[in-house]
Amino acid sequence: MISVVLLGAGNVATHLYKAFSKAENITVTQWYNRSNSAISSYANEVETIDSLADLKEADIYIMAISDDSISKLSKVLPFENRLVAHTSGSVSIHDLDKKNQRAVFYPLQTFSKDADLDFSEVPICIEVTEKRNLQILKDLAENLGCKSYKINTEQRQTLHLSAVFVNNFTNQLYRIAHEISDAKSINFDILKPLITETAQKVQNMSPYMAQTGPAKRNDKKTIKRHLKQIESEEHKKIYKLLTESIKKTHGQR
Amino acid sequence: MISVVLLGAGNVATHLYKAFSKAENITVTQWYNRSNSAISSYANEVETIDSLADLKEADIYIMAISDDSISKLSKVLPFENRLVAHTSGSVSIHDLDKKNQRAVFYPLQTFSKDADLDFSEVPICIEVTEKRNLQILKDLAENLGCKSYKINTEQRQTLHLSAVFVNNFTNQLYRIAHEISDAKSINFDILKPLITETAQKVQNMSPYMAQTGPAKRNDKKTIKRHLKQIESEEHKKIYKLLTESIKKTHGQR
Repeated sequence: MISVVLLGAGNVATHLYKAFSKAENITVTQWYNRSNSAISSYANEVETIDSLADLKEADIYIMAISDDSISKLSKVLPFENRLVAHTSGSVSIHDLDKKNQRAVFYPLQTFSKDADLDFSEVPICIEVTEKRNLQILKDLAENLGCKSYKINTEQRQTLHLSAVFVNNFTNQLYRIAHEISDAKSINFDILKPLITETAQKVQNMSPYMAQTGPAKRNDKKTIKRHLKQIESEEHKKIYKLLTESIKKTHGQR
Repeated sequence: MISVVLLGAGNVATHLYKAFSKAENITVTQWYNRSNSAISSYANEVETIDSLADLKEADIYIMAISDDSISKLSKVLPFENRLVAHTSGSVSIHDLDKKNQRAVFYPLQTFSKDADLDFSEVPICIEVTEKRNLQILKDLAENLGCKSYKINTEQRQTLHLSAVFVNNFTNQLYRIAHEISDAKSINFDILKPLITETAQKVQNMSPYMAQTGPAKRNDKKTIKRHLKQIESEEHKKIYKLLTESIKKTHGQR
């Protein structure tokens, strides 16, 4: 049985709490947040606290809090030489105060308060300062049903950057398509199967191999007509830049 | 029973042929291609022909051929006043020769020769010049298990443009993430669940509501560090432009 104290009340903390509570071999000893009101609705199933002085002993303390607060909170923890992990994709492991044993437990996924999530599909990126702690982090991930990957800080920061491309930027392309189609009274539902299939394809094929379309074929006529259709200058710029990028990738320039 | 003559041998034609053959109430009368060798492997299950003079009567002739060939082929069809449809997202319905009754049967999906596809998930965009032909096109889509949408040429061309954003451009973002992570010896598999979840989220939520990340939060520190991490000038440009786009969408500038 792995005992966990969870710190924080944001989306990641909440999803982690739910996943930890469901796992057979994990027990959440306490859930800390500086304001109890954010977690008080869970008080009937877990000990919720808002004072660091009340923290009990546990195998691992997981700080699922904002990047900017990690260093500060790690300094004021009222104990030493215990295992403390943060869950950030971008904060260095060395930002954790060295009075404790340090680790990172970074779930690479997009967490929304409302969207339900199958946690077992979330890859966990693990980093430790003391090698002997690797196993407990692996066990923790495994008990959630997750694949875990040993990743150093530079790799984790690179993943965080890559995630912005495949998640935030991709989502913005969806948004632009939504705007463009809305302007012509087209039901966005028509595009949803294509969105799914595009994501599905690269699960078993490299994005390079999966590419199709006018930019890859260097179909100048279609590209020209598309640019004429686009009304927003900003969308035009994005169309041009990504078309050039595809042409470069596929040797069309 | 709807009888179909299929013309063409590309990805769309091949996927359509497979879907038509499986459908109970559709019969493929003939499959035409100017070169028989491309379709001869199907000769034991369907009549394959390479001469337009051999074309038999059918309820509908579906030309799944390249955009540039549609007008030309429609002119040399050796019959009149029959129902002829093309499958292109961008070619006007009026590019079909008016000696026949004209229609569009545009499946909005990405078709790869190798990737298997559940055709019933493909939305079919339908357009006709004679209203009385609407029903047979709807029936055809329904017999494939597909949802169909009545869409005019301008809307269809807008969908085609939107599809470039959600498919080709999105796939290029996957490609860039692949390049960035490869450069640091990171397994691209780690990003796949995030790709799936990002596409999944907008099935039930608008892309606007689904957005997260540093650009939406206007998290200048993270954006600055990401730009420092990116080695390619081209990737930097894309990062900046899409970050600005997200900031604009979410009122951060």
